[in-house]
Amino acid sequence: AAAAVAVDRARGLNLPKLELIRFAAQGEVAAAGFPHADNVSPAILGFFTVISSYRPLKVISLPPPKNVGFVIATPEVSFDTRLARSILPKTVELHRVVYNTGRVATFIAGLTTNNLRLMGMGMSDSIVEPARERLIPGLSDVREAAVEAGAQGVAISGAGPSVIALVDLTEGNAERVAVAMNEAFSRSGVKSQTICTKPGPGARIVRVWRV
Amino acid sequence: AAAAVAVDRARGLNLPKLELIRFAAQGEVAAAGFPHADNVSPAILGFFTVISSYRPLKVISLPPPKNVGFVIATPEVSFDTRLARSILPKTVELHRVVYNTGRVATFIAGLTTNNLRLMGMGMSDSIVEPARERLIPGLSDVREAAVEAGAQGVAISGAGPSVIALVDLTEGNAERVAVAMNEAFSRSGVKSQTICTKPGPGARIVRVWRV
Repeated sequence: AAAAVAVDRARGLNLPKLELIRFAAQGEVAAAGFPHADNVSPAILGFFTVISSYRPLKVISLPPPKNVGFVIATPEVSFDTRLARSILPKTVELHRVVYNTGRVATFIAGLTTNNLRLMGMGMSDSIVEPARERLIPGLSDVREAAVEAGAQGVAISGAGPSVIALVDLTEGNAERVAVAMNEAFSRSGVKSQTICTKPGPGARIVRVWRV
Repeated sequence: AAAAVAVDRARGLNLPKLELIRFAAQGEVAAAGFPHADNVSPAILGFFTVISSYRPLKVISLPPPKNVGFVIATPEVSFDTRLARSILPKTVELHRVVYNTGRVATFIAGLTTNNLRLMGMGMSDSIVEPARERLIPGLSDVREAAVEAGAQGVAISGAGPSVIALVDLTEGNAERVAVAMNEAFSRSGVKSQTICTKPGPGARIVRVWRV
Protein backbone atom coordinates (compact mmCIF):
# COMPACT_ATOMS: atom_id res chain seq x y z
CA ALA A 1 0.00 0.00 0.00
CA ALA A 2 2.78 2.42 0.94
CA ALA A 3 4.65 1.44 -2.23
CA ALA A 4 1.59 2.25 -4.33
CA VAL A 5 1.30 5.67 -2.69
CA ALA A 6 5.04 6.33 -3.16
CA VAL A 7 5.10 5.31 -6.83
CA ASP A 8 1.99 7.38 -7.45
CA ARG A 9 3.80 10.47 -6.13
CA ALA A 10 7.18 9.69 -7.74
CA ARG A 11 5.58 9.31 -11.15
CA GLY A 12 3.20 12.23 -10.63
CA LEU A 13 0.26 9.98 -11.48
CA ASN A 14 -2.26 11.35 -8.99
CA LEU A 15 -4.37 8.22 -9.26
CA PRO A 16 -7.65 8.05 -7.36
CA LYS A 17 -7.27 6.15 -4.08
CA LEU A 18 -9.51 3.39 -5.37
CA GLU A 19 -6.98 2.77 -8.16
CA LEU A 20 -4.15 2.64 -5.61
CA ILE A 21 -6.14 0.05 -3.66
CA ARG A 22 -6.60 -1.97 -6.84
CA PHE A 23 -2.84 -2.03 -7.52
CA ALA A 24 -1.85 -2.64 -3.90
CA ALA A 25 -4.32 -5.55 -3.71
CA GLN A 26 -2.20 -7.31 -6.34
CA GLY A 27 0.69 -7.22 -3.88
CA GLU A 28 -1.27 -9.54 -1.60
CA VAL A 29 -0.62 -12.36 -4.06
CA ALA A 30 2.80 -12.67 -2.41
CA ALA A 31 1.35 -12.99 1.11
CA ALA A 32 -2.03 -14.64 0.64
CA GLY A 33 -1.79 -16.34 -2.74
CA PHE A 34 -4.45 -14.17 -4.39
CA PRO A 35 -5.27 -10.46 -4.66
CA HIS A 36 -7.50 -9.01 -1.96
CA ALA A 37 -8.17 -5.56 -0.52
CA ASP A 38 -8.75 -6.46 3.16
CA ASN A 39 -5.49 -4.91 4.36
CA VAL A 40 -4.55 -2.42 1.68
CA SER A 41 -7.89 -0.55 1.84
CA PRO A 42 -7.40 0.72 5.40
CA ALA A 43 -3.64 1.08 4.75
CA ILE A 44 -4.46 3.58 1.99
CA LEU A 45 -7.70 5.18 3.22
CA GLY A 46 -6.91 4.99 6.93
CA PHE A 47 -9.12 4.21 9.94
CA PHE A 48 -11.93 1.71 9.27
CA THR A 49 -12.94 0.56 5.81
CA VAL A 50 -15.69 -1.62 4.39
CA ILE A 51 -15.23 -3.39 1.06
CA SER A 52 -18.78 -2.88 -0.17
CA SER A 53 -18.18 -4.79 -3.37
CA TYR A 54 -15.39 -6.22 -5.52
CA ARG A 55 -17.11 -6.06 -8.90
CA PRO A 56 -16.97 -3.15 -9.29
CA LEU A 57 -14.50 -2.36 -6.50
CA LYS A 58 -16.19 -0.05 -3.99
CA VAL A 59 -14.64 0.76 -0.62
CA ILE A 60 -16.06 3.06 2.04
CA SER A 61 -14.10 4.68 4.83
CA LEU A 62 -15.59 5.21 8.29
CA PRO A 63 -14.05 7.54 10.89
CA PRO A 64 -13.78 5.92 14.33
CA PRO A 65 -15.01 7.24 17.67
CA LYS A 66 -12.23 9.34 19.27
CA ASN A 67 -11.92 7.06 22.28
CA VAL A 68 -11.14 3.90 20.30
CA GLY A 69 -7.86 2.31 21.32
CA PHE A 70 -6.37 -1.03 20.38
CA VAL A 71 -4.01 -3.36 22.14
CA ILE A 72 -2.22 -5.74 19.80
CA ALA A 73 -0.44 -8.74 21.27
CA THR A 74 1.87 -10.63 18.94
CA PRO A 75 2.97 -14.06 20.15
CA GLU A 76 6.43 -15.24 19.14
CA VAL A 77 5.30 -18.29 17.20
CA SER A 78 6.12 -19.33 13.66
CA PHE A 79 3.14 -18.60 11.48
CA ASP A 80 2.25 -19.15 7.85
CA THR A 81 -0.38 -16.75 6.51
CA ARG A 82 -1.05 -19.02 3.54
CA LEU A 83 -1.75 -21.90 5.91
CA ALA A 84 -4.01 -19.65 7.99
CA ARG A 85 -5.94 -18.86 4.83
CA SER A 86 -6.00 -22.45 3.59
CA ILE A 87 -7.67 -23.83 6.73
CA LEU A 88 -10.70 -21.61 6.30
CA PRO A 89 -13.87 -23.62 5.73
CA LYS A 90 -14.97 -23.80 2.08
CA THR A 91 -18.62 -23.78 3.13
CA VAL A 92 -20.28 -22.37 6.21
CA GLU A 93 -23.41 -23.54 8.03
CA LEU A 94 -26.28 -21.08 7.68
CA HIS A 95 -26.64 -20.58 11.44
CA ARG A 96 -23.04 -19.33 11.57
CA VAL A 97 -23.81 -16.88 8.76
CA VAL A 98 -26.80 -15.59 10.75
CA TYR A 99 -24.58 -15.20 13.84
CA ASN A 100 -21.85 -13.31 11.98
CA THR A 101 -24.34 -11.12 10.11
CA GLY A 102 -25.75 -9.90 13.43
CA ARG A 103 -22.26 -9.26 14.75
CA VAL A 104 -21.06 -7.36 11.68
CA ALA A 105 -24.18 -5.18 11.75
CA THR A 106 -23.60 -4.57 15.46
CA PHE A 107 -19.95 -3.62 14.90
CA ILE A 108 -20.76 -1.07 12.19
CA ALA A 109 -23.67 0.32 14.22
CA GLY A 110 -21.31 0.79 17.17
CA LEU A 111 -18.61 2.33 15.00
CA THR A 112 -20.94 4.89 13.44
CA THR A 113 -22.81 5.77 16.65
CA ASN A 114 -19.76 5.97 18.95
CA ASN A 115 -20.78 2.93 20.98
CA LEU A 116 -17.68 0.92 21.86
CA ARG A 117 -19.66 -1.70 23.72
CA LEU A 118 -21.48 -2.57 20.48
CA MET A 119 -18.20 -2.51 18.55
CA GLY A 120 -16.69 -4.96 21.02
CA MET A 121 -19.70 -7.25 20.82
CA GLY A 122 -19.49 -7.13 17.03
CA MET A 123 -15.91 -8.43 17.07
CA SER A 124 -16.92 -11.97 17.88
CA ASP A 125 -16.92 -14.36 14.95
CA SER A 126 -18.25 -17.90 14.50
CA ILE A 127 -16.75 -18.62 11.07
CA VAL A 128 -13.08 -17.74 10.76
CA GLU A 129 -11.83 -17.72 14.34
CA PRO A 130 -12.94 -21.25 15.28
CA ALA A 131 -10.93 -22.53 12.29
CA ARG A 132 -7.80 -20.58 13.23
CA GLU A 133 -8.03 -20.95 16.99
CA ARG A 134 -5.64 -23.91 17.06
CA LEU A 135 -2.91 -21.92 15.27
CA ILE A 136 -2.63 -19.50 18.19
CA PRO A 137 -1.64 -21.14 21.48
CA GLY A 138 -3.60 -19.84 24.46
CA LEU A 139 -6.01 -17.75 22.37
CA SER A 140 -9.11 -18.39 24.47
CA ASP A 141 -7.20 -17.58 27.67
CA VAL A 142 -5.82 -14.39 26.09
CA ARG A 143 -9.32 -13.39 25.03
CA GLU A 144 -10.76 -13.91 28.51
CA ALA A 145 -7.87 -12.11 30.19
CA ALA A 146 -8.27 -9.08 27.92
CA VAL A 147 -12.01 -8.82 28.59
CA GLU A 148 -11.46 -9.23 32.31
CA ALA A 149 -8.92 -6.39 32.20
CA GLY A 150 -11.51 -4.12 30.56
CA ALA A 151 -11.33 -4.78 26.80
CA GLN A 152 -14.64 -4.27 24.97
CA GLY A 153 -13.91 -7.03 22.46
CA VAL A 154 -11.16 -9.28 21.16
CA ALA A 155 -10.38 -10.78 17.76
CA ILE A 156 -7.58 -12.39 15.81
CA SER A 157 -5.83 -9.56 13.96
CA GLY A 158 -6.02 -10.32 10.25
CA ALA A 159 -5.02 -13.93 9.64
CA GLY A 160 -3.08 -14.00 12.94
CA PRO A 161 -1.09 -14.73 15.00
CA SER A 162 -1.54 -11.27 16.55
CA VAL A 163 -4.57 -10.78 18.76
CA ILE A 164 -6.26 -7.38 18.86
CA ALA A 165 -8.34 -6.01 21.73
CA LEU A 166 -10.60 -2.96 21.57
CA VAL A 167 -10.34 -0.62 24.55
CA ASP A 168 -12.24 2.51 25.51
CA LEU A 169 -9.50 5.10 26.07
CA THR A 170 -11.76 7.25 28.25
CA GLU A 171 -11.53 4.40 30.75
CA GLY A 172 -7.75 4.40 30.32
CA ASN A 173 -7.10 0.71 30.70
CA ALA A 174 -5.05 -0.08 27.58
CA GLU A 175 -1.88 -0.77 29.57
CA ARG A 176 -3.76 -3.06 31.92
CA VAL A 177 -5.21 -5.00 28.98
CA ALA A 178 -1.74 -5.27 27.42
CA VAL A 179 -0.27 -6.73 30.60
CA ALA A 180 -3.16 -9.18 30.93
CA MET A 181 -2.76 -10.42 27.35
CA ASN A 182 1.00 -10.76 27.74
CA GLU A 183 0.59 -12.75 30.96
CA ALA A 184 -2.04 -14.99 29.38
CA PHE A 185 0.29 -15.87 26.51
CA SER A 186 3.01 -16.58 29.09
CA ARG A 187 0.74 -19.10 30.80
CA SER A 188 0.72 -21.01 27.50
CA GLY A 189 4.51 -20.83 27.42
CA VAL A 190 4.59 -18.21 24.66
CA LYS A 191 6.44 -14.90 24.74
CA SER A 192 4.61 -11.95 23.21
CA GLN A 193 5.07 -8.30 22.30
CA THR A 194 2.23 -5.87 22.99
CA ILE A 195 1.50 -2.49 21.43
CA CYS A 196 -1.09 0.07 22.53
CA THR A 197 -2.26 2.07 19.53
CA LYS A 198 -5.13 3.93 17.87
CA PRO A 199 -6.69 3.80 14.41
CA GLY A 200 -4.67 6.10 12.15
CA PRO A 201 -4.71 7.74 8.74
CA GLY A 202 -3.59 5.94 5.59
CA ALA A 203 -0.14 5.77 3.99
CA ARG A 204 1.21 9.24 3.24
CA ILE A 205 4.33 10.86 1.87
CA VAL A 206 6.65 11.72 4.78
CA ARG A 207 9.63 13.14 2.88
CA VAL A 208 10.63 13.56 -0.76
CA TRP A 209 14.23 13.43 -1.99
CA ARG A 210 14.80 14.97 -5.39
CA VAL A 211 17.85 13.52 -7.17
CA ALA B 1 -45.97 -8.71 18.45
CA ALA B 2 -49.10 -6.56 18.81
CA ALA B 3 -50.69 -9.32 20.91
CA ALA B 4 -47.68 -9.33 23.24
CA VAL B 5 -47.93 -5.55 23.67
CA ALA B 6 -51.70 -5.77 24.26
CA VAL B 7 -51.48 -8.57 26.84
CA ASP B 8 -48.67 -6.73 28.59
CA ARG B 9 -50.94 -3.69 29.01
CA ALA B 10 -54.10 -5.66 29.83
CA ARG B 11 -52.33 -7.55 32.59
CA GLY B 12 -50.41 -4.49 33.79
CA LEU B 13 -47.16 -6.42 33.44
CA ASN B 14 -44.94 -3.62 32.15
CA LEU B 15 -42.42 -6.09 30.82
CA PRO B 16 -39.22 -4.77 29.24
CA LYS B 17 -39.46 -4.69 25.45
CA LEU B 18 -36.81 -7.37 25.18
CA GLU B 19 -39.12 -9.71 27.11
CA LEU B 20 -42.00 -8.87 24.78
CA ILE B 21 -39.76 -9.75 21.83
CA ARG B 22 -38.89 -13.04 23.49
CA PHE B 23 -42.57 -13.98 23.88
CA ALA B 24 -43.62 -12.73 20.46
CA ALA B 25 -40.79 -14.72 18.86
CA GLN B 26 -42.53 -17.88 20.10
CA GLY B 27 -45.50 -16.90 17.94
CA GLU B 28 -43.33 -17.38 14.85
CA VAL B 29 -43.48 -21.14 15.43
CA ALA B 30 -46.90 -21.01 13.74
CA ALA B 31 -45.56 -19.21 10.64
CA ALA B 32 -41.97 -20.37 10.30
CA GLY B 33 -41.84 -23.61 12.26
CA PHE B 34 -39.44 -22.30 14.91
CA PRO B 35 -39.13 -19.21 17.12
CA HIS B 36 -37.23 -16.27 15.68
CA ALA B 37 -37.10 -12.52 16.30
CA ASP B 38 -36.55 -11.26 12.73
CA ASN B 39 -40.04 -9.78 12.39
CA VAL B 40 -41.20 -9.22 15.94
CA SER B 41 -38.16 -7.12 16.91
CA PRO B 42 -38.96 -4.25 14.53
CA ALA B 43 -42.70 -4.81 15.14
CA ILE B 44 -42.12 -4.04 18.83
CA LEU B 45 -39.18 -1.61 18.75
CA GLY B 46 -40.09 0.08 15.46
CA PHE B 47 -37.91 1.32 12.60
CA PHE B 48 -34.75 -0.75 11.96
CA THR B 49 -33.47 -3.40 14.33
CA VAL B 50 -30.39 -5.60 14.49
CA ILE B 51 -30.47 -8.89 16.37
CA SER B 52 -26.98 -8.63 17.82
CA SER B 53 -27.19 -12.00 19.52
CA TYR B 54 -29.67 -14.71 20.48
CA ARG B 55 -27.84 -16.13 23.50
CA PRO B 56 -28.38 -13.90 25.35
CA LEU B 57 -31.04 -12.10 23.30
CA LYS B 58 -29.78 -8.62 22.45
CA VAL B 59 -31.56 -6.38 19.95
CA ILE B 60 -30.57 -2.86 18.96
CA SER B 61 -32.84 -0.29 17.37
CA LEU B 62 -31.57 2.17 14.77
CA PRO B 63 -33.52 5.28 13.71
CA PRO B 64 -33.69 5.68 9.93
CA PRO B 65 -32.80 8.72 7.84
CA LYS B 66 -35.90 10.94 7.47
CA ASN B 67 -36.00 10.56 3.71
CA VAL B 68 -36.27 6.76 3.69
CA GLY B 69 -39.35 5.52 1.87
CA PHE B 70 -40.33 2.02 0.87
CA VAL B 71 -42.42 0.66 -1.94
CA ILE B 72 -43.77 -2.81 -1.26
CA ALA B 73 -45.20 -4.80 -4.15
CA THR B 74 -47.12 -7.94 -3.25
CA PRO B 75 -47.79 -10.33 -6.12
CA GLU B 76 -51.02 -12.33 -6.00
CA VAL B 77 -49.41 -15.76 -5.92
CA SER B 78 -49.93 -18.60 -3.49
CA PHE B 79 -46.99 -18.73 -1.15
CA ASP B 80 -45.88 -20.97 1.68
CA THR B 81 -43.55 -19.29 4.19
CA ARG B 82 -42.45 -22.67 5.53
CA LEU B 83 -41.46 -23.74 2.03
CA ALA B 84 -39.62 -20.44 1.53
CA ARG B 85 -37.69 -21.18 4.71
CA SER B 86 -37.10 -24.83 3.86
CA ILE B 87 -35.39 -24.12 0.53
CA LEU B 88 -32.67 -22.06 2.18
CA PRO B 89 -29.23 -23.61 1.73
CA LYS B 90 -27.97 -25.54 4.77
CA THR B 91 -24.42 -24.47 4.04
CA VAL B 92 -23.07 -21.43 2.22
CA GLU B 93 -19.89 -21.04 0.18
CA LEU B 94 -17.37 -18.76 1.88
CA HIS B 95 -17.24 -16.32 -1.05
CA ARG B 96 -20.97 -15.69 -0.63
CA VAL B 97 -20.43 -15.01 3.07
CA VAL B 98 -17.73 -12.47 2.18
CA TYR B 99 -20.10 -10.83 -0.33
CA ASN B 100 -22.98 -10.58 2.14
CA THR B 101 -20.74 -9.39 4.97
CA GLY B 102 -19.65 -6.42 2.85
CA ARG B 103 -23.26 -5.66 1.92
CA VAL B 104 -24.58 -5.85 5.49
CA ALA B 105 -21.79 -3.56 6.69
CA THR B 106 -22.59 -1.17 3.84
CA PHE B 107 -26.31 -1.17 4.67
CA ILE B 108 -25.75 -0.34 8.34
CA ALA B 109 -23.14 2.29 7.47
CA GLY B 110 -25.66 3.91 5.10
CA LEU B 111 -28.45 3.70 7.65
CA THR B 112 -26.44 5.35 10.41
CA THR B 113 -24.83 8.03 8.22
CA ASN B 114 -27.96 8.99 6.25
CA ASN B 115 -26.62 7.65 2.97
CA LEU B 116 -29.45 5.98 1.05
CA ARG B 117 -27.21 5.02 -1.84
CA LEU B 118 -25.17 2.86 0.53
CA MET B 119 -28.34 1.44 2.08
CA GLY B 120 -29.60 0.47 -1.36
CA MET B 121 -26.30 -1.14 -2.27
CA GLY B 122 -26.38 -3.06 1.00
CA MET B 123 -29.75 -4.62 0.15
CA SER B 124 -28.29 -7.03 -2.36
CA ASP B 125 -27.85 -10.58 -1.13
CA SER B 126 -26.04 -13.60 -2.55
CA ILE B 127 -27.28 -16.22 -0.08
CA VAL B 128 -31.02 -16.14 0.52
CA GLU B 129 -32.41 -14.42 -2.56
CA PRO B 130 -30.87 -16.73 -5.18
CA ALA B 131 -32.56 -19.66 -3.39
CA ARG B 132 -35.96 -17.97 -3.27
CA GLU B 133 -35.84 -16.27 -6.66
CA ARG B 134 -37.80 -19.05 -8.36
CA LEU B 135 -40.70 -18.69 -5.88
CA ILE B 136 -41.43 -15.16 -7.11
CA PRO B 137 -42.34 -14.95 -10.81
CA GLY B 138 -40.69 -12.02 -12.58
CA LEU B 139 -38.50 -11.04 -9.62
CA SER B 140 -35.44 -10.05 -11.63
CA ASP B 141 -37.57 -7.95 -13.99
CA VAL B 142 -39.30 -6.29 -11.02
CA ARG B 143 -35.92 -5.52 -9.46
CA GLU B 144 -34.58 -3.94 -12.65
CA ALA B 145 -37.74 -1.94 -13.24
CA ALA B 146 -37.66 -0.52 -9.70
CA VAL B 147 -34.03 0.56 -9.99
CA GLU B 148 -34.67 2.08 -13.40
CA ALA B 149 -37.56 4.07 -11.90
CA GLY B 150 -35.25 5.46 -9.22
CA ALA B 151 -35.16 2.92 -6.38
CA GLN B 152 -31.89 2.83 -4.43
CA GLY B 153 -32.13 -0.89 -3.78
CA VAL B 154 -34.50 -3.85 -3.95
CA ALA B 155 -34.93 -7.00 -1.88
CA ILE B 156 -37.40 -9.75 -1.16
CA SER B 157 -39.44 -8.59 1.83
CA GLY B 158 -38.99 -11.15 4.59
CA ALA B 159 -39.46 -14.64 3.17
CA GLY B 160 -41.52 -13.23 0.25
CA PRO B 161 -43.47 -13.04 -1.94
CA SER B 162 -43.56 -9.25 -1.42
CA VAL B 163 -40.72 -7.27 -2.94
CA ILE B 164 -39.51 -4.13 -1.18
CA ALA B 165 -37.75 -1.19 -2.82
CA LEU B 166 -35.92 1.60 -1.01
CA VAL B 167 -36.62 5.10 -2.32
CA ASP B 168 -35.20 8.48 -1.41
CA LEU B 169 -38.29 10.58 -0.64
CA THR B 170 -36.43 13.84 -1.28
CA GLU B 171 -36.37 12.72 -4.91
CA GLY B 172 -40.10 11.99 -4.67
CA ASN B 173 -40.26 8.99 -6.97
CA ALA B 174 -42.06 6.42 -4.81
CA GLU B 175 -45.20 6.43 -6.97
CA ARG B 176 -43.12 6.00 -10.10
CA VAL B 177 -41.30 3.03 -8.56
CA ALA B 178 -44.63 1.51 -7.51
CA VAL B 179 -46.02 1.75 -11.04
CA ALA B 180 -42.84 0.26 -12.49
CA MET B 181 -42.92 -2.72 -10.12
CA ASN B 182 -46.61 -3.31 -10.77
CA GLU B 183 -46.07 -3.24 -14.53
CA ALA B 184 -43.09 -5.58 -14.27
CA PHE B 185 -45.17 -8.15 -12.37
CA SER B 186 -47.87 -7.77 -15.04
CA ARG B 187 -45.35 -8.67 -17.74
CA SER B 188 -44.93 -12.01 -15.93
CA GLY B 189 -48.71 -12.42 -15.91
CA VAL B 190 -49.02 -11.68 -12.18
CA LYS B 191 -51.31 -9.10 -10.59
CA SER B 192 -49.83 -7.17 -7.66
CA GLN B 193 -50.74 -4.65 -4.98
CA THR B 194 -48.30 -1.86 -4.21
CA ILE B 195 -47.96 0.26 -1.08
CA CYS B 196 -45.79 3.35 -0.58
CA THR B 197 -44.79 3.61 3.06
CA LYS B 198 -42.13 4.69 5.55
CA PRO B 199 -40.42 2.99 8.49
CA GLY B 200 -42.66 3.46 11.54
CA PRO B 201 -42.71 3.04 15.30
CA GLY B 202 -43.45 -0.29 16.97
CA ALA B 203 -46.77 -1.75 18.11
CA ARG B 204 -48.57 0.57 20.52
CA ILE B 205 -51.83 0.78 22.41
CA VAL B 206 -54.36 2.70 20.30
CA ARG B 207 -57.43 2.48 22.53
CA VAL B 208 -58.33 0.77 25.80
CA TRP B 209 -61.83 -0.49 26.62
CA ARG B 210 -62.48 -1.06 30.29
CA VAL B 211 -65.24 -3.64 30.90
